[in-house]
Amino acid sequence: MDERTPISANSLEISKNVLGEYAPIYKNELLQNILPFWLSNSKDDKNGGYFTCLNRQGKVYDTDKFMWLQGREVWCFSYMYNHVEKNSAWLNMALHGARFMQQFGRDEIGNWYFSLTAEGKPLVQPYNIFSDCFATMAFASLDKAQPNAEYKKIAIETFENIIQRQHNSKGIYSKAYPGTRNLKNFSLPMILCNLSLELEHIIGKERVDSFIPTVINEVMNVFYQEDLGLVLENVYEDGSFCDSFEGRLLNPGHTIEAMWFIMDLGKRLEDEALVKKACNIMLDTLDYGWDKEYGGIFYFLDVKGNPPQQLEWDQKLWWVHVEALVALAKGYAYTKDDRCADWFKKIHDYTWQHFKDPEYGEWFGYLNRRGEVLLDLKGGKWKGCFHIPRALYQVWKTLESL
Amino acid sequence: MDERTPISANSLEISKNVLGEYAPIYKNELLQNILPFWLSNSKDDKNGGYFTCLNRQGKVYDTDKFMWLQGREVWCFSYMYNHVEKNSAWLNMALHGARFMQQFGRDEIGNWYFSLTAEGKPLVQPYNIFSDCFATMAFASLDKAQPNAEYKKIAIETFENIIQRQHNSKGIYSKAYPGTRNLKNFSLPMILCNLSLELEHIIGKERVDSFIPTVINEVMNVFYQEDLGLVLENVYEDGSFCDSFEGRLLNPGHTIEAMWFIMDLGKRLEDEALVKKACNIMLDTLDYGWDKEYGGIFYFLDVKGNPPQQLEWDQKLWWVHVEALVALAKGYAYTKDDRCADWFKKIHDYTWQHFKDPEYGEWFGYLNRRGEVLLDLKGGKWKGCFHIPRALYQVWKTLESL
Repeated sequence: MDERTPISANSLEISKNVLGEYAPIYKNELLQNILPFWLSNSKDDKNGGYFTCLNRQGKVYDTDKFMWLQGREVWCFSYMYNHVEKNSAWLNMALHGARFMQQFGRDEIGNWYFSLTAEGKPLVQPYNIFSDCFATMAFASLDKAQPNAEYKKIAIETFENIIQRQHNSKGIYSKAYPGTRNLKNFSLPMILCNLSLELEHIIGKERVDSFIPTVINEVMNVFYQEDLGLVLENVYEDGSFCDSFEGRLLNPGHTIEAMWFIMDLGKRLEDEALVKKACNIMLDTLDYGWDKEYGGIFYFLDVKGNPPQQLEWDQKLWWVHVEALVALAKGYAYTKDDRCADWFKKIHDYTWQHFKDPEYGEWFGYLNRRGEVLLDLKGGKWKGCFHIPRALYQVWKTLESL
Repeated sequence: MDERTPISANSLEISKNVLGEYAPIYKNELLQNILPFWLSNSKDDKNGGYFTCLNRQGKVYDTDKFMWLQGREVWCFSYMYNHVEKNSAWLNMALHGARFMQQFGRDEIGNWYFSLTAEGKPLVQPYNIFSDCFATMAFASLDKAQPNAEYKKIAIETFENIIQRQHNSKGIYSKAYPGTRNLKNFSLPMILCNLSLELEHIIGKERVDSFIPTVINEVMNVFYQEDLGLVLENVYEDGSFCDSFEGRLLNPGHTIEAMWFIMDLGKRLEDEALVKKACNIMLDTLDYGWDKEYGGIFYFLDVKGNPPQQLEWDQKLWWVHVEALVALAKGYAYTKDDRCADWFKKIHDYTWQHFKDPEYGEWFGYLNRRGEVLLDLKGGKWKGCFHIPRALYQVWKTLESL
């Protein structure tokens, strides 16, 4: 990175060039470091599926299989096969995970378990609808790589099941007493829209288009608070503010990730005002969520400045930072707003300096507030083969097209 | 503390004196700082019950009512009334919380909700059996202060309900798939024994004595691992080690707290070998759990040295440190082992320097690894009027009796 031309202030031409220069860095990291790391370390040759609990060196330290991460890795390798190159090692890796998911992943009514043992025995019940979301993504994407009636069937059935469960997604596992404080969470409308896009080749453009206005309205008018310039994680069912731990919660990384989805929807709809609005919310969230003392983006904040209930609130997480890089690359590509270029450079420097492991493969996931490594795992219960490769791909392609 | 005589190495006489000198410090802190803080800040005069979410200055920042903390505060003020002095303000404070608990705390079959709104509407279902445990303690202790058939009835009915639920304590809220990995947790046998002691004036010595051998066996032979010298949080139902996130989990504070319960049981049984064994496990756990780089006791560790799943693993929590002070005071009083006096001094210094707020009342609860304040709340969803006053009382009385 030393040979990089510095960004000179407010010069659109130069900052254009500068961001363009980042493209090969992201491409190389994806192809030379990240994908090979998962290919060589996460495959369970004996039982099928993937190990995701990998230590700093890539060695398996726990063999449980979390369905979020199984689905995400199938999606990732299929996606790279579909979009980067027809690399048969990637397709085989995706097929390897999909077979395990097909065989062991669901209960008798088609809900996806949260986790399984290495051998595929159910460990944790299907209480978490995101297992189903990532399974849908996995089989939709794999079906693009290798069309197959069974993959289509799994993807569509799971999608319809999610739609049915969406207003009571935890079902019998919900601990909320019904009626006292009915909140809705910002994740599900986002992910439904995203899923429908993944399924477009199966369910068709019309059905996808039917999801988009609702999602845009929910995110940009209900969860987004005009007066604060911020997006809340949870609001009352009527959209109003709930003064509770859940209601006051901000998750800057989540907002920023959502804003690049919305920018992409804006592009699809050719709605420039929407793109701009999403880009501005993203930039405002960065301003708010950036740690002015130590750098990096906070994990959780309380909108009233009260102590959040999450003890990990001040930690710096990999996914937050790589999603911010995607949002900034897209924001810059779509709006040419110089603030995006400036922020991109700042967050690029922070991210590559702190998250990338200079000695072994892949990146660290969890840093403390000061940016020091808190857990040196490369994969675990929540970190797998997903955010980093997806972000590297998105940034590479976005900046390459400038 | 500056006038304190320094502990000179291995001199039993001097270290005896030194620990004795700490007694008034603990007494004053309890009576001048901690109890007044909760008396003046946590009472909800309008709705009944207690606010526990108090910011650094003692101001309420969230009004939800968590049954753990309602029960613990009733217990605390009753206990102080029973053991320190017949202060009517304390008794009234306990009665104030108990009325709210009686009126709103239980569902139709007598399980205690996890949380309520300020007004007493149920928010979170009774998924957590510790709500019931602290309710039992509350009404048993209050019944000692002001004998009352209704308090006795609530205490006993809740206790019998806990015993019935003990092997499936999460009931319908459990997410574990039955049969794949049946683990048992070390908390429940401990707390059952502790509860029976609280109820001794109601259920009688014989019933209490019937609980003790099981608990001692579970803790000292099943959860304690001779080869490691450590206590595991979770083991298979047959007592064997489970190589999973749950099975590898160590919670040094929890072990240390359990060891002072066991030492007290050892005293009751006049079993000196048991007292000594518990004291040694406590000291070994301190050696293992002490952060050699920054000081303080880690919150969570993995017995194999793998990354724990708890992102807050390296934080320093108030209850861990004050429970260690109790364990060390008792360990010293019961065994006269000099290591207890040395550790007491070291942890006393760390705790009073880092947790006590030099400007406002009460103590901080959550520090980062370096011992800097992570959340400046004085009470929240999990921190209330319990560990600090109980520990200050226990240390005061134990050291005063030397």
